[in-house]
Amino acid sequence: MKKLILSCALTGAATNRNHCPHIPYTPKELGEEGRRAVDAGASILHIHAREDDGTPSWRTEVFEAIHEEVRQRCPNVIINFSTGAIGLSKEERMKHIPVTRPDVAAFNMSSMNYAIYSKKNKKFYWDGVFENSYTTMQYVINLINEAGTCPEMECFDTGHIRNADIFRDMGLLPDNATYSLVMGVMGGIPATPENLIHQIKQVPEGRHWQSIVISRDQWRLSAIAAAMGGSFRVGMEDNFYLPSGEMAKSNGELVEEGAKLAQLIGRQIATTEEAREMLNIPFRH
Amino acid sequence: MKKLILSCALTGAATNRNHCPHIPYTPKELGEEGRRAVDAGASILHIHAREDDGTPSWRTEVFEAIHEEVRQRCPNVIINFSTGAIGLSKEERMKHIPVTRPDVAAFNMSSMNYAIYSKKNKKFYWDGVFENSYTTMQYVINLINEAGTCPEMECFDTGHIRNADIFRDMGLLPDNATYSLVMGVMGGIPATPENLIHQIKQVPEGRHWQSIVISRDQWRLSAIAAAMGGSFRVGMEDNFYLPSGEMAKSNGELVEEGAKLAQLIGRQIATTEEAREMLNIPFRH
Amino acid sequence: MKKLILSCALTGAATNRNHCPHIPYTPKELGEEGRRAVDAGASILHIHAREDDGTPSWRTEVFEAIHEEVRQRCPNVIINFSTGAIGLSKEERMKHIPVTRPDVAAFNMSSMNYAIYSKKNKKFYWDGVFENSYTTMQYVINLINEAGTCPEMECFDTGHIRNADIFRDMGLLPDNATYSLVMGVMGGIPATPENLIHQIKQVPEGRHWQSIVISRDQWRLSAIAAAMGGSFRVGMEDNFYLPSGEMAKSNGELVEEGAKLAQLIGRQIATTEEAREMLNIPFRH
Amino acid sequence: MKKLILSCALTGAATNRNHCPHIPYTPKELGEEGRRAVDAGASILHIHAREDDGTPSWRTEVFEAIHEEVRQRCPNVIINFSTGAIGLSKEERMKHIPVTRPDVAAFNMSSMNYAIYSKKNKKFYWDGVFENSYTTMQYVINLINEAGTCPEMECFDTGHIRNADIFRDMGLLPDNATYSLVMGVMGGIPATPENLIHQIKQVPEGRHWQSIVISRDQWRLSAIAAAMGGSFRVGMEDNFYLPSGEMAKSNGELVEEGAKLAQLIGRQIATTEEAREMLNIPFRH
Repeated sequence: MKKLILSCALTGAATNRNHCPHIPYTPKELGEEGRRAVDAGASILHIHAREDDGTPSWRTEVFEAIHEEVRQRCPNVIINFSTGAIGLSKEERMKHIPVTRPDVAAFNMSSMNYAIYSKKNKKFYWDGVFENSYTTMQYVINLINEAGTCPEMECFDTGHIRNADIFRDMGLLPDNATYSLVMGVMGGIPATPENLIHQIKQVPEGRHWQSIVISRDQWRLSAIAAAMGGSFRVGMEDNFYLPSGEMAKSNGELVEEGAKLAQLIGRQIATTEEAREMLNIPFRH
Repeated sequence: MKKLILSCALTGAATNRNHCPHIPYTPKELGEEGRRAVDAGASILHIHAREDDGTPSWRTEVFEAIHEEVRQRCPNVIINFSTGAIGLSKEERMKHIPVTRPDVAAFNMSSMNYAIYSKKNKKFYWDGVFENSYTTMQYVINLINEAGTCPEMECFDTGHIRNADIFRDMGLLPDNATYSLVMGVMGGIPATPENLIHQIKQVPEGRHWQSIVISRDQWRLSAIAAAMGGSFRVGMEDNFYLPSGEMAKSNGELVEEGAKLAQLIGRQIATTEEAREMLNIPFRH
Repeated sequence: MKKLILSCALTGAATNRNHCPHIPYTPKELGEEGRRAVDAGASILHIHAREDDGTPSWRTEVFEAIHEEVRQRCPNVIINFSTGAIGLSKEERMKHIPVTRPDVAAFNMSSMNYAIYSKKNKKFYWDGVFENSYTTMQYVINLINEAGTCPEMECFDTGHIRNADIFRDMGLLPDNATYSLVMGVMGGIPATPENLIHQIKQVPEGRHWQSIVISRDQWRLSAIAAAMGGSFRVGMEDNFYLPSGEMAKSNGELVEEGAKLAQLIGRQIATTEEAREMLNIPFRH
Repeated sequence: MKKLILSCALTGAATNRNHCPHIPYTPKELGEEGRRAVDAGASILHIHAREDDGTPSWRTEVFEAIHEEVRQRCPNVIINFSTGAIGLSKEERMKHIPVTRPDVAAFNMSSMNYAIYSKKNKKFYWDGVFENSYTTMQYVINLINEAGTCPEMECFDTGHIRNADIFRDMGLLPDNATYSLVMGVMGGIPATPENLIHQIKQVPEGRHWQSIVISRDQWRLSAIAAAMGGSFRVGMEDNFYLPSGEMAKSNGELVEEGAKLAQLIGRQIATTEEAREMLNIPFRH
């Protein structure tokens, strides 16, 4: 089995320090947390930008500052920038990509609901429509391609995976585009072993894929992903609890547990150099 | 195995007589086609409204006329009205329901892309976002419930099926709500045996479900649905080709083939009376 | 989808005219029933030999007589002879093959239990061990190969399918060896849709396979086999009830229903000539 | 999720110190290795008997000595004795059970081939038929029941799992009988993720089950078992390599890695007391 590439999603956009006091906000904090994740075995850092008070940011300057702070502390890590947002135009969501030209950018593969539901209170705390029409997706993939950036296809349900075939058919998808099987978003496919396995079966033979699991079910589904030959993502965007149930104090702690898990399953962890070669993403800055 | 309930979707909204000259448009034509479908074994008629020139209609008067023409010719059939439309407000899409109070109304279970792609020309002929946020869905289910109508939950992907649990958890879903596993819409789950089987596994034990398959793959996937104990839908909205490859001349011909198929699989076809009892939808007009 | 090859198992060894008065016994009756099956669309006849009183026979002369009677009435049909028996030596089970050199011979792929259990009486009416050690299997496949006969690999459980890989690895398996997924023997894999689908997934891409389902579940599982691109077998060995629940009066009636079923699923039925070409089994007598 | 019960199979019968110098042979060595396994988290010890030179033994005195040596060092551990052997009569295989009355005894669930094949040399090094006819199985389960011992149902393929239903139907199966899904024996179901998941789906809701995986694929399949809510077995009978690829120096090392793996998946390890309660196996000597 090939080596497993560990990704870490450092911060996300939906949670804040009321949920977990250790979530990084500023570019410098993201750089520090990035270093901890890399030291523990991550070779890809998936990053959302925030203002210094923790609110989501789409300012290009912030992305530039993050890129610099991370690159300074993690000279070779694969930097992966988010491009998703609910309620922003496609132009606003994408404008940092041509400027920062990150190694990887997220390519969200369909429109969908994106919500937070409270079973306890029987109501929705948040309810959005995440718009990614085929027209929007064409706009996004074109900008990603022009930046020489590798698309990470975020697939939140079964039909989303098939959309990759369409973009490949249109000649818009580079060969090294990767599949992320996102599980557990309210509006997407639920985070169950059966669903993960079904999603894995949809990925064409030979393509790189990873699981992204929201919530503490992450650990058990990551184990399945590793056992079935794929990679997985951890990090405070998706889950801030360690397998023991304790809250993590850093992204590094989460990556460390992920690396141990992969190794106990018999997988070796790719170094950043190996990950760059496996994914065909040469260093270019 | 319990009896199989045959549905027929008489006309749809996306195709017209250039595609198939036998598609019914007017209320009277829908009534005639409804009768042919019922004679061949259908006990549920799923109906979209059209203006007399075939363009989609959301006028309440048209739905009322359809209801009358169908009911006149099919005194006991279960009438199921569409509530889905791209680009219309939720109020416009739903305004015929409180007036016509059909036996069943479609309840679309998520936002999604809804498009037509040409592999030959490598482009999209149609690209829409079908908006069904959780807020919209609450509006829809409330109106359906107030009309005393049974919701038919149209699930176009795996995550959509889970949404039923949420509405059940909120106390908004009547016990007889049915699951429709819609396969083959560009934007939803592709029409493959593996996907259908996976969708079937998501439906909670004991609930009524049917497959709805767009395209000629309908016949083979309907066979799987029947073999696995469910029901299926045929009709000119979804597919106008007979298993032989010939174009059907009426909805009746499609239902007839569906009935034969079910019987050869060892399933008995429910009469309309039996279907009303199985689905707990008493006649009320 | 390629054409579907219908097989008919005319008689078997486990049932008799107390179970169904129309089961053929004598070579002449087998010839007549073979003709009815072929007329209805079968291109392969799977045949066990019986003495004239219906008891199982392994006498070479009986196989020779059957071959002649069938060939006389069905000049081109693919003749497939059983090689399985419980309690006989491998030499006795195989001795008709070098003499009759049939088009196809069954190749049983593992040792297993083979029994009949009565749920009503909570006891076993029959309990045998069907011995097919790897040593026996090597003996069998060598004789089949020497006769220039095509092996039909009878796989009664998941591990049996993998055994084909071993014989392929040893260089003992011709390229046109086919897979039969036998479901529903007490001792083998139960006849459920999930099990059939799992078995289908084990067959290497591009190989010909068919389902063989014991009991009336045959109809619904055959539908799944046809829908998933495979072929299926019917006939009085496996099941003597029509989809309607009535007992068949001939193998021809069973094949007729199978042919209709396949066609309603959208499959075309291969003629005997087409089947010979698809399976690379040229006529040679 | 309930706690995970770790089993350790200390020695087996098929390998010897040429394969791994740390395999225990004598009752005393088994006692020592048992203690190491228990210290590392095992609550069940599955044990085959050997003569002092390592050859398989079925002498009752040896089982008695093992029972005593293990019990002395592991006062509360659940002792599970093998009852399987190829080429021995059912009486010989079972005669230690009424005397030693272990907590658990293996109940082999079908006849099957049991072989060793060398891909390199394209031949079988060992080829046996493991006979467990329904008649033999009735003999075995009756003796297990009379000893007040809990049966561990060893299921080597899909059909074997169904046999549990038959014995339950006959009233011969105690409620706490457990399912072992054995993967990777040549003759049984191959050790793949898809096969394991399929086997898991066959186990009736609420029954205790564990995976037993032969070969180094054990680690990744154990991860899947743990992720799906089951338990798993490690130990020198099945595999003597650690996830790192190094050969283990003791059963304790293997259990230690298994315990870490389970914990990283988010599972807690049952103590022996908890395991006895979960499995309803009270201490009785």
